[in-house]
Amino acid sequence: MKAGSSQTAGDKAASYIRGNRDRFVAELKEFIGFASVSAQPARRGDVVSCAKWLAGRLRRIGLQEARVVSTPGHPIVCAEWMRAPESPTVLVYGHYDVQPAEPLDQWRTPPFKATIDGPEIRGRGASDNKGQMWAHIKAIETLLATSARLPVNIRCLFEGEEEIGSPNLKPFIERHRRRLAADVAVISDTRMVAINQPTLTYSLRGGISFELEVRGQRAELHSGNFGGAIRNPLQVLCEVIAGLHDQDGRIAIPGFYDRVRRKSRSERDFMAATGPTNRQILHDAGAWAGWGESGYSLYERTTIRPALSITGIGGGYQGDGVKSIIPAKANARLNFRLVPDQEPAEIERLFRRHLARVMPPTISHTIHCHLAARPAVIDREHPAMEAAAASYEKGFGVRPIFIRSGGTIPIVSSLQNLLGIPVVLMGFGLPDDRIHAPNEKFHLPNLFGGIRTSMAFLNEIHARRGDLHQ
Amino acid sequence: MKAGSSQTAGDKAASYIRGNRDRFVAELKEFIGFASVSAQPARRGDVVSCAKWLAGRLRRIGLQEARVVSTPGHPIVCAEWMRAPESPTVLVYGHYDVQPAEPLDQWRTPPFKATIDGPEIRGRGASDNKGQMWAHIKAIETLLATSARLPVNIRCLFEGEEEIGSPNLKPFIERHRRRLAADVAVISDTRMVAINQPTLTYSLRGGISFELEVRGQRAELHSGNFGGAIRNPLQVLCEVIAGLHDQDGRIAIPGFYDRVRRKSRSERDFMAATGPTNRQILHDAGAWAGWGESGYSLYERTTIRPALSITGIGGGYQGDGVKSIIPAKANARLNFRLVPDQEPAEIERLFRRHLARVMPPTISHTIHCHLAARPAVIDREHPAMEAAAASYEKGFGVRPIFIRSGGTIPIVSSLQNLLGIPVVLMGFGLPDDRIHAPNEKFHLPNLFGGIRTSMAFLNEIHARRGDLHQ
Repeated sequence: MKAGSSQTAGDKAASYIRGNRDRFVAELKEFIGFASVSAQPARRGDVVSCAKWLAGRLRRIGLQEARVVSTPGHPIVCAEWMRAPESPTVLVYGHYDVQPAEPLDQWRTPPFKATIDGPEIRGRGASDNKGQMWAHIKAIETLLATSARLPVNIRCLFEGEEEIGSPNLKPFIERHRRRLAADVAVISDTRMVAINQPTLTYSLRGGISFELEVRGQRAELHSGNFGGAIRNPLQVLCEVIAGLHDQDGRIAIPGFYDRVRRKSRSERDFMAATGPTNRQILHDAGAWAGWGESGYSLYERTTIRPALSITGIGGGYQGDGVKSIIPAKANARLNFRLVPDQEPAEIERLFRRHLARVMPPTISHTIHCHLAARPAVIDREHPAMEAAAASYEKGFGVRPIFIRSGGTIPIVSSLQNLLGIPVVLMGFGLPDDRIHAPNEKFHLPNLFGGIRTSMAFLNEIHARRGDLHQ
Repeated sequence: MKAGSSQTAGDKAASYIRGNRDRFVAELKEFIGFASVSAQPARRGDVVSCAKWLAGRLRRIGLQEARVVSTPGHPIVCAEWMRAPESPTVLVYGHYDVQPAEPLDQWRTPPFKATIDGPEIRGRGASDNKGQMWAHIKAIETLLATSARLPVNIRCLFEGEEEIGSPNLKPFIERHRRRLAADVAVISDTRMVAINQPTLTYSLRGGISFELEVRGQRAELHSGNFGGAIRNPLQVLCEVIAGLHDQDGRIAIPGFYDRVRRKSRSERDFMAATGPTNRQILHDAGAWAGWGESGYSLYERTTIRPALSITGIGGGYQGDGVKSIIPAKANARLNFRLVPDQEPAEIERLFRRHLARVMPPTISHTIHCHLAARPAVIDREHPAMEAAAASYEKGFGVRPIFIRSGGTIPIVSSLQNLLGIPVVLMGFGLPDDRIHAPNEKFHLPNLFGGIRTSMAFLNEIHARRGDLHQ
């Protein structure tokens, strides 16, 4: 094929990507280099630096109004391109904050120094969500650099508090509904079920997290002098936690399942036909046997059934050697995942009532709620989902499958409810990306497949603009 | 009374103590200032400095052969005075190592900067065991300074590993049986039941401590993606711990009680008549209700009945905010207290067998034994105990009572078994000394009562030398 003015827009874009490949990756390394851990107050400066850097990048690729917007928490980064008045508007959401990197001693390379390892880029946030966001940003850059325009209008909304439950995003969207008005939102913060198997996520679980502290007697006691005669709050905490599940792996909080919507046989058949097998899920988990509620596949247990995970516990002496004490207090962290039609506020009430009932009279407890988000479901047959399916096929050469995710993306129900638009969850992550865990990585071929898919998606939305508001 | 050469030895001693009161306390502050935490490898240098300082003090007061003896762990400090060939030899045991000071944020004053607060001296080790040891050292100083001799021979044996189970003391005693030969040992590492109620402890519980680690799948997992389908090792740890006690507060390890010796009615009556009431124990614990094995008083539960305390637990995320994970591992620390005729090695076997049986197949576990010591009982009617009772009366003006302690002093059974001598447990601590806990303190009037009692004890042993070996 001859180069020159006869090149199609697609050829030009492909050639631009080829020519800038190394720079795209180098910039992503820079992005991962910011320790933008939203949960850790000591990282506040890193979060802000990351936001400023990101806004600068958006400005440089030709987006307008690129800015860092302060919130009572971490800033939101916005930008737009609104020069296609006849076309729909696509809202691109992402989050530049990351999970804590702890436990640090389990990382093979420093979490905030991105490292290339064959086809992978390793570092905290590589997949969740910096690498996946990056695909859209580089798609927009490529289109603007090669055509000087975009097929649709774009609004970018990149937050810095996703990993702590987006406390300031919902008020921000409520306040700026008009400035955020769009026809469809796209989020790449999910995963493909396997390499080269594009995947559209059509449901998410909701979530609510708690910190529970129990206290017994006034101070730590010597376990020799008092062991056997004073109730140990750490033992009580273990007993309470042990009592939160029954023998069948069900959550033993009265009323917990009352609002869980039962799925139809046809939906369960669809899931069985298209979703991951038990074997695949176990492989991804690095576990050799499953666990949980009987009567459901592992895929169902992690998507259409709620769950409770004990995410942390601490109490008593944890240093070197031995300290012979009865601790005065202990604490645990718990994370519930919810399904339609469970409401986080109601689950909180049920949990508090349960704790008040099971806690022995000599043990006091406090409970603090950290995170709450509703479950979300997206219609598989919406035209925006069909546009997404067609563009995935262009980006990866393979038709996507539709799956449910067990994760929670609080923004999804907020966008659906506040802006009244469909949300396309177009994942570029992989099951073995180890998000939230040590040695998180992102598969670099998915960065480039993601760029191609994102470009195709903007074109497909333009092409289907007549069907969008049927 | 006229001062001068007609002063009795007792008058001279009393006057010496009055004149040196402030220095005795200042030196004790210096002693507490060493962070001699045997359990923490980072404190190794402080332990050694403390040992050297202590040996220097023993030399300065006129003891012979004062020296720091290396061991594979922390050093032992020895000294002696063997110039009373017709008299018995008293072995004075103490330990200059201390418990870890954690949790540091709960101390009102720095743990290793001793602070005087009214009649109390506060700091880690103030009561356990530096302040109590100090009474004997200052008694010896006073006698040597005022009479240039002692009524009996003395061997000091001060170790630096009591709080980690004395791993090197037993081999040291075995190797130096002749150099340590004595007629009676005295240890002040226990407590009086109340201010001005001297207390001879005639039984101790044994102990064994474990660190238990459980592991599930290969790595931490995202609790959204996998919650509900993968067994959580932290939850399993809680279930296993919850299962270690039954509903009646008894330890639910098969065979655990098989060797527990039942006490006679008369012994239980003696305990009820002389020991602390439930109310006193609850007051000392700062708790408003008791707990434990039914059919026994709180005093009995902590002395003639075994106990299991969960002393620490850790797993998953314990930092700020929320981290949504299923941890890959978790750990707990456990401390058993044993009574005659339970053998630590047998308890370890039973515990390991129990864990192997209850652990689910997908969870692996490792268990590490940290500490093991046999229970010990001392005959209340031994002449050395009668000497101790008489000297307490001289030191504090009150007859002592005889009690059992729930604590463990591994040296006691070692001295009994290896040297074949009675061990007098002459406590100067108080129930509210908060040993092993933040804000540990020692009651200074007990330092001076202890000095008087220790001097009287050496005289009483000399006076009863004919009865000692009946």
